[in-house]
Amino acid sequence: MRALLTDLYQLTMAAGYYESGKVGERATFELFVRHLPPNRNFIVAAGLAQAVEYLLDFHFEPAELDYLRRLPQFRNASSGFFDYLAGLRFSGDLFAVPEGTPLFAGEPVLTVRAPLVEAQIIETYLLATIGFQTLIATKAWRIATTAGDCSVVEFGTRRAHSPEAGVLAGRAAYIGGCAGTSNTETGFRYGVPVYGTAAHSWVQSFTSEDESYRRLQQLLGEATIYLIDTYDTVEGARKAAALGRPLWGVRLDSGNLVELSRKVRAILDEAGLRDARIMATGDLNEYKILELRNHRVPIDAFGVGTALATSDDAPHLGAVYKLVELQSNNVRRFTAKFSEDKHTIPGAKQIFRYQGYDLVARTAQAPKRDPDGQWPEALIEPVIISGTLARELPDAAAARSFAALSTGRLPAATRSLFEGADPYRVEYSPELLRLLDQVRHPTPGVPI
Amino acid sequence: MRALLTDLYQLTMAAGYYESGKVGERATFELFVRHLPPNRNFIVAAGLAQAVEYLLDFHFEPAELDYLRRLPQFRNASSGFFDYLAGLRFSGDLFAVPEGTPLFAGEPVLTVRAPLVEAQIIETYLLATIGFQTLIATKAWRIATTAGDCSVVEFGTRRAHSPEAGVLAGRAAYIGGCAGTSNTETGFRYGVPVYGTAAHSWVQSFTSEDESYRRLQQLLGEATIYLIDTYDTVEGARKAAALGRPLWGVRLDSGNLVELSRKVRAILDEAGLRDARIMATGDLNEYKILELRNHRVPIDAFGVGTALATSDDAPHLGAVYKLVELQSNNVRRFTAKFSEDKHTIPGAKQIFRYQGYDLVARTAQAPKRDPDGQWPEALIEPVIISGTLARELPDAAAARSFAALSTGRLPAATRSLFEGADPYRVEYSPELLRLLDQVRHPTPGVPI
Repeated sequence: MRALLTDLYQLTMAAGYYESGKVGERATFELFVRHLPPNRNFIVAAGLAQAVEYLLDFHFEPAELDYLRRLPQFRNASSGFFDYLAGLRFSGDLFAVPEGTPLFAGEPVLTVRAPLVEAQIIETYLLATIGFQTLIATKAWRIATTAGDCSVVEFGTRRAHSPEAGVLAGRAAYIGGCAGTSNTETGFRYGVPVYGTAAHSWVQSFTSEDESYRRLQQLLGEATIYLIDTYDTVEGARKAAALGRPLWGVRLDSGNLVELSRKVRAILDEAGLRDARIMATGDLNEYKILELRNHRVPIDAFGVGTALATSDDAPHLGAVYKLVELQSNNVRRFTAKFSEDKHTIPGAKQIFRYQGYDLVARTAQAPKRDPDGQWPEALIEPVIISGTLARELPDAAAARSFAALSTGRLPAATRSLFEGADPYRVEYSPELLRLLDQVRHPTPGVPI
Repeated sequence: MRALLTDLYQLTMAAGYYESGKVGERATFELFVRHLPPNRNFIVAAGLAQAVEYLLDFHFEPAELDYLRRLPQFRNASSGFFDYLAGLRFSGDLFAVPEGTPLFAGEPVLTVRAPLVEAQIIETYLLATIGFQTLIATKAWRIATTAGDCSVVEFGTRRAHSPEAGVLAGRAAYIGGCAGTSNTETGFRYGVPVYGTAAHSWVQSFTSEDESYRRLQQLLGEATIYLIDTYDTVEGARKAAALGRPLWGVRLDSGNLVELSRKVRAILDEAGLRDARIMATGDLNEYKILELRNHRVPIDAFGVGTALATSDDAPHLGAVYKLVELQSNNVRRFTAKFSEDKHTIPGAKQIFRYQGYDLVARTAQAPKRDPDGQWPEALIEPVIISGTLARELPDAAAARSFAALSTGRLPAATRSLFEGADPYRVEYSPELLRLLDQVRHPTPGVPI
């Protein structure tokens, strides 16, 4: 179904591997972020569940193979190659950090160990899946953390990069710390809590604003949130206050939120509605929320759309997927790329997280205690073994709790909204650095 | 299938409309861009085909309705409402500009005229579909136009906001003027030409770079594009040149493209391969391509990924969907929003495009000739009438030709990469402005 959802070169390379007799070779690829996006001191890993769903279902449909056969790029490919593709499933291993894990530049989010062709074709889908949800979970963490004890709801599907991106943004935002999403499909598929208010068109569709409010209250009762800025925010607040209980509160969507929230709070309080809440929306982001909170505005919740669902100050992550090992006929080779401005570190890796710093090591290395005698956490875990799910994955709610716990343990400087002078310490083990040196400057006749 | 893919408030409002006896009312909504994104003098409309596919298939599955029934927000909704949803299909009308049409701020991309509930629920999906593809088609136009006679291929799925966004980005980039995409699913679904080269992992997977090149040439023949920067670009070029024909050319993916392209061109020429082409990739965008072309570099084609598939300098469009008319019991009301910083213009609209300027008019207005006696083009056409497709839509290739033709007719200042002092003229007809005034300041007792 989605096996064609990849870059064409993955498929021409697959043909090349097949025709070169390399289908028996096993490759190890790592997915990681080369550099952190601007103002990010870490990323929050997300999207693993969708990557796993894709791998377990990986196959080509007959119509898809017919399409490939007709492409000029496959003119020289043998019919054996297409038979091979027709039977292809993901038979390899997947290792990954759990969703919600904070990670740093260069640290693997996941590692694939599989027959070369399989590992190659899946690259594009894995990058897009993990890259996007990680981007959004990271942005959500920034926004939700800034909002502190005010809850944040993700409202951005309409501005997401396609409807499906909106569904996944809602999931990732929840993992990153939002209270929920407005995307009902996200709620249905992933059990994420859904929230909503009413739109301007609701207010406009009645001949009076009062009637639109009364009707909303009848329907939603204690969940009622009046949108009060369609005509005049202060007037809207008075009309809402006049209706009394039940209500959850009101929503402000335009104007000067500092002034308006204070005026509206006063109106609600005068009407004896001290428990009615104020939600603010309208092109918000972590910086605007920080400023509002610095003004100590009487706002209780934020709805954040565009900036969150598109991570607009950093709309891409720069995730890459690089070959680090290759095994053919029981000979293992370590690989790396040493071009001018991009390089990689060879060999499959584990991340050992100590109190306040990480050690990236070779997978074969045993962990060591830190100077205080504490063992590190090994972050990378088996997820799929020989094409079979090793264990059930945590759901979005569990990933969200895990993210809150693990990001809560990071140093204060790392948790800042801004790039600090004191970046989190990520070290590479001497064994890994030795391997890098050996691959870079091989000694003839000496195996690595 | 995708009817739940909407904001929850659309569904609670639907319940409210149902319970308030408003299901017989017909609404007219318009989808438009409030402001152009930075440095854009126009947008290229795209995504209509996917919007139509969604509308023609719109329905709720039983499991989706069960999910809604259990949500707290529907506690007061009647069982009649869920029966109503179970039978709900899109029965309204859709009017839109053809894909590939250049548009300006405030001009409708599409207009929906449908029962209020239907028109409301579809808002979120339509905005995400049209908004995203329009964003990417617009970015692609900028990049492809800057590249001039060099072709541009969209390579960005791995950085797109989800795999599905990558598929749609490939389609939209083609409409905007790219020669094709690397996304094979985009080729399969939409008939967009697909292109590819080889990855660094291909080179690394062989024990020598030479062998990896020979194998690629065997497989791809005249379509062979060597990726020459895995170890050393100049050395890579020499190895590629030594293999001679057949080849399409080489790809540079890192380093100083001005210097390297010249060195590589010289190496290919010395080997008698004057017809071998050079493709450049690696974090390119319209500004970098402009700079490269100003240096008159010997580059023949560009592959653009991240910047294109995420429109990274303007990652959202700010498209909105606003109620402009409402009809109940044969009484028509015109609606608008007049809040402090956001307002809308009431009434369904047509866009008349004259030579060099547009006139936005009421749909009932007849077009007039311009001072030179020329008739304008009416841009908005019927697409769906009473839930049925009015005619087959043009495919992506036809939309691409139409985009090239229509953007080619725009004034030079409008076609600039930068915001000009001389924006394109968009006027509103006196009839429309009169309507706006009447809605804003209604005269009691005088019908509009």
